[in-house]
Parts: sequence; C-alpha cells; structure tokens
Amino acid sequence: MAASSSSALFLTAAAQNLLCIKLAEGLGVEVPNRWITWFKASSLPAVGSLLVTPVIVYKLFPPTLKHTPDAPVMAKEKLDHMGPIKREEWLMMGTMLITVALWISGEHINVSSVVAALLGLSLLLLSGVLEWDDCLSEKSAWDTLVWFGVLVGMAGQLTTLGVVPWLSDLVAHMLKSLSVNKLGAFAILQLAYFFIHYLFASQTAHVGALYSAFLGMHLAAKIPGLLSVLVLGYNTNLFGALMHYSSGQAAVYYGGGFVKLPAVIRLGIIMAIVNLVIWGLIGAFWWKILGLY
Amino acid sequence: MAASSSSALFLTAAAQNLLCIKLAEGLGVEVPNRWITWFKASSLPAVGSLLVTPVIVYKLFPPTLKHTPDAPVMAKEKLDHMGPIKREEWLMMGTMLITVALWISGEHINVSSVVAALLGLSLLLLSGVLEWDDCLSEKSAWDTLVWFGVLVGMAGQLTTLGVVPWLSDLVAHMLKSLSVNKLGAFAILQLAYFFIHYLFASQTAHVGALYSAFLGMHLAAKIPGLLSVLVLGYNTNLFGALMHYSSGQAAVYYGGGFVKLPAVIRLGIIMAIVNLVIWGLIGAFWWKILGLY
Repeated sequence: MAASSSSALFLTAAAQNLLCIKLAEGLGVEVPNRWITWFKASSLPAVGSLLVTPVIVYKLFPPTLKHTPDAPVMAKEKLDHMGPIKREEWLMMGTMLITVALWISGEHINVSSVVAALLGLSLLLLSGVLEWDDCLSEKSAWDTLVWFGVLVGMAGQLTTLGVVPWLSDLVAHMLKSLSVNKLGAFAILQLAYFFIHYLFASQTAHVGALYSAFLGMHLAAKIPGLLSVLVLGYNTNLFGALMHYSSGQAAVYYGGGFVKLPAVIRLGIIMAIVNLVIWGLIGAFWWKILGLY
Repeated sequence: MAASSSSALFLTAAAQNLLCIKLAEGLGVEVPNRWITWFKASSLPAVGSLLVTPVIVYKLFPPTLKHTPDAPVMAKEKLDHMGPIKREEWLMMGTMLITVALWISGEHINVSSVVAALLGLSLLLLSGVLEWDDCLSEKSAWDTLVWFGVLVGMAGQLTTLGVVPWLSDLVAHMLKSLSVNKLGAFAILQLAYFFIHYLFASQTAHVGALYSAFLGMHLAAKIPGLLSVLVLGYNTNLFGALMHYSSGQAAVYYGGGFVKLPAVIRLGIIMAIVNLVIWGLIGAFWWKILGLY
C-alpha cells in the first residue's frame, strides 16, 4: 500500500512514470526539469500518504505478531555474517548516487537522462560490478524495452492518425454538454482512469493503452497541461495496490500467501479511497501553491 | 570454408551484411533494391567459389573416413523416428518463405525489410510456433541488437565529426602520391581490409571498426560507390574462415575438436588466397558486365 505513494514520489521510482512523460511529449506537453518538477508536485501529498497509510493499514488489518524482540538480534547476526560492505557494493552505491544526481541536475548541465543512465551502466560494466552477460540475462529489461518501444510507437501513431484527438474531443464535448465544469471534468476523468485499472494486470499496459487518450481529454477540457500530465502520472502509481494483479509489487506480496483474496479486495478499495482523498485534498492545496492551476 | 561464400551470396545470409548496407547509407551510398542487387553481383563468383571449395579442401585435407554406407540408413531411421513434418514446422517454413519473398520484392511493393522481418516474427508469435519468452531468452539476439546499435551510432559519429573523411583522404592521398592507379588502390585497400581480420575475433566488430573508414578510402580514391560497398561486404564474409576465431561458425567447427590448429591456419590462408583469386577474377568479369565499374 505504501509503495503506491513511494513510487509516485520520484520520477525514477517506477518505469511507467518515465513512459507517462514520454507519451505526454507526443501530445505536445513538455515537462521542464522533469525530475525536480515531478518531485516538487508529488512531495507533499506523497509524504502525507506515506505517513497515514501504515497507521490505517495497521488498524484495518492488524498484524498477528506484534512483539518481535528477536528480529533486531537476528538482523544483527545476519549483518555480522555478511561482513563489511564490499568493494562492489560501494561502487554500486556510488554509481547510483552519480546517476540520480545527474537525473536531478541534468537539465542545468545539459546531460540528458538517457546519457546519465548509460553512464551509470558503463561505470558498472567498467568496474566489473556487472558483466555484460548479466545484462543479457536480464530478461525483464529486454521485455520492458520492446514493450515500451511498441507502446510508445503505437501511442504516437494513434495520435498522428487522429484517433486520440477524436476520442478526446468526443468525451470533452460530452462532459461539456452535461454542463460539467473544469473541476468536475478533472475529477470524473481521474476517477475513471483510476477505476478502469480493475481491468488491467499491468501499470505499464494501462499507461500504454489509456494515458494518451486521457491526457488528450484533459487538454480538450482545457485543464492545464502540466497538471494533467503529473496527476495522471501519480494516479498511475496509486492504483498499484487495487487488486493482487494490479502491479508487479502487488503480485509479489500476494504471492507470499499471507494475505488472502477477500482481504486484498477490501484493503485495496479502502486504501484506494483513502489515497484519493489524501492526494485530492493535499494536492488541491499544494498544486495551487505551486501554480500548476 | 564454403560458408564464407554462401554467407556472401545473400544479403540476409549474415548479420554483418545488413550492417555494411547501413553503414554505407551513412556515407551517402544508397544500394537500390538491396536484396536483388547484392545477390546479382555476388551470384557468379559465389557459385564459382562454392563449386571449387569442396574439391580443393577435399584434396588438401582428405577425410579419414571416405566410405559411409551406414549414414543414409541412419538418416532414414532418424527421419522415420521423427515422423511427418509437424504443423509448427510447416508454419515456420511458410513464414520463412513469406519473409524472404518480401525481402526480395519489398522495394517494388513498398514494404521495408524491417516491416518484413517484424511481420515474420509476428506470424511466428501469433501461430504459437514461437513464444515471446523464447525471444526474451535469445540472448545472442539482444547482444547483436545492442552491439549494432552502438556500432552504427559510433560509426555515424566518426563520420559526422570528420574522423572517417580525414583518414580516408589521408590514405587516398598517400596512394596517389605513390602513383597507384584506381585498380591498384582498389586491390591494396581490399587486401588490407581482408588481412587485418587476423586481428579481429568477430566479423561484426571488424565491420563496425573499419567498414566506414575503408569505404571512405574507396570513395576518396574515386572507386565507384556501389562496387565498393558490395565488394567490401563480400570481402567481410570471405575472411570468416581465416582463423579459428575469425567468425562464429569457425569457432563452432574448431570447437568440434576434429581439426587441429596448424591445419586451421594452413587451410585458412590457402583457401583465403583461393577465394580472393576466384572472386577477383570472376568478379572483375561479372561486375564489368553488370556495369558496376
């Protein structure tokens, strides 16, 4: 549940975030200073949500084991057994720091995020922390590469061929004819985008299928572009705990077998509403201050 | 030994052939109707070489076992054991035929070679002959993808930044100051390109490192562009059996353990000279007829 907000906090915390930004570019909405802009707008609602979520889940679904004095002892033993931090681990940490620093400051020193990522990979390969063979064996990375390539290409073509603008205008007109104002349209579109995720087994697939269309509807309804791009992006992370199949991490936690399906469904919908309320209220306030609308 | 000429025969017979065409584009030499042009120019010398090679190798390195009456019987038994051709195998053959047909005729019906390849892959995936997971596990394909991406990118930059033109002009001027005529320059450049392969453990790496520069030198020496592109491409295949590390297939045959290193070195250089003579003589005649020079 907490991972929903933590992956919304940083642009680089989830693959789908970068896909959102990429698709937004295709519709002509550029996000200046990406990493910082994303983080600034997400910071307050995400921190609010991260503080509240554990408390609520603790009440709703109390752990059966509340007193664990052995845990720190066991952890200490394991750490002693592992010994001091190894050379490779220091190098990994250093590379990660450099890469993230470049992602954050890249725009000012003219280093694109791709260059920063490739620099990090090259450092790991040169220092021997990673072998090229490790990279080739990383099947899920190749999967994501092809998956993203196809999705971005298809989304681009759907926009170029006029499908996305047509659908967006249609929905925007419909909302207008029902005399829904901008705030109403924003709420309806965000809620629809959110709950359609019951039909998706991957956040990336959801973004690929619907992000461009929904962003188009926001723009057609005259909702500010940058606000729409970011909030749809945050929204994409928040629905990750809706069901046990809703995201990669949800599948892993459910796969652990400790939480049964009825509890998943119940917690998923309750926390979804809690998150929407927190992000909606804090966001409305914070995004106004930041001048996003 | 024969694979050197068979992989030179068809554009689609080896990955490095396509890389040559791609790099040639970067230097402004377009190959019209790629597959056919490549095949037309290679056909006569390649067929000549394919007819002569087995005979010469048979004489130079006679098999220890010359009489194998059991082989056809064993083959028949294995075939009976395998049963009739399976559905998947028919589909694979059909897809291969469609793909190659599109590669051959693509230019006329406006289907690019990438579209043809992706169509073939899609057919295999849709018909269940291949699973996407098989593709993800194909590590050498991902290796080639990244390898080619980096090589093409680097070669492009070397040209853009002026390194290739500078080097090419330098060598061309040197050849001119030694009063070498066009034919002499062509021969020297092709031989140099060929024998430098003793230093390379991969045909693709060789193409990536030297193809653009050598093509540039040909062009600077006023040798016709299309001829240079094709002959350097054929050349790249012919040096595949020079040493046991010279190409993927050479490594596999040597890895079988039947041929010892001294025999590899001896056969490699003898057959290299035989191939150069055959391709040189038949080529000189054939390429004149085709109007390549």
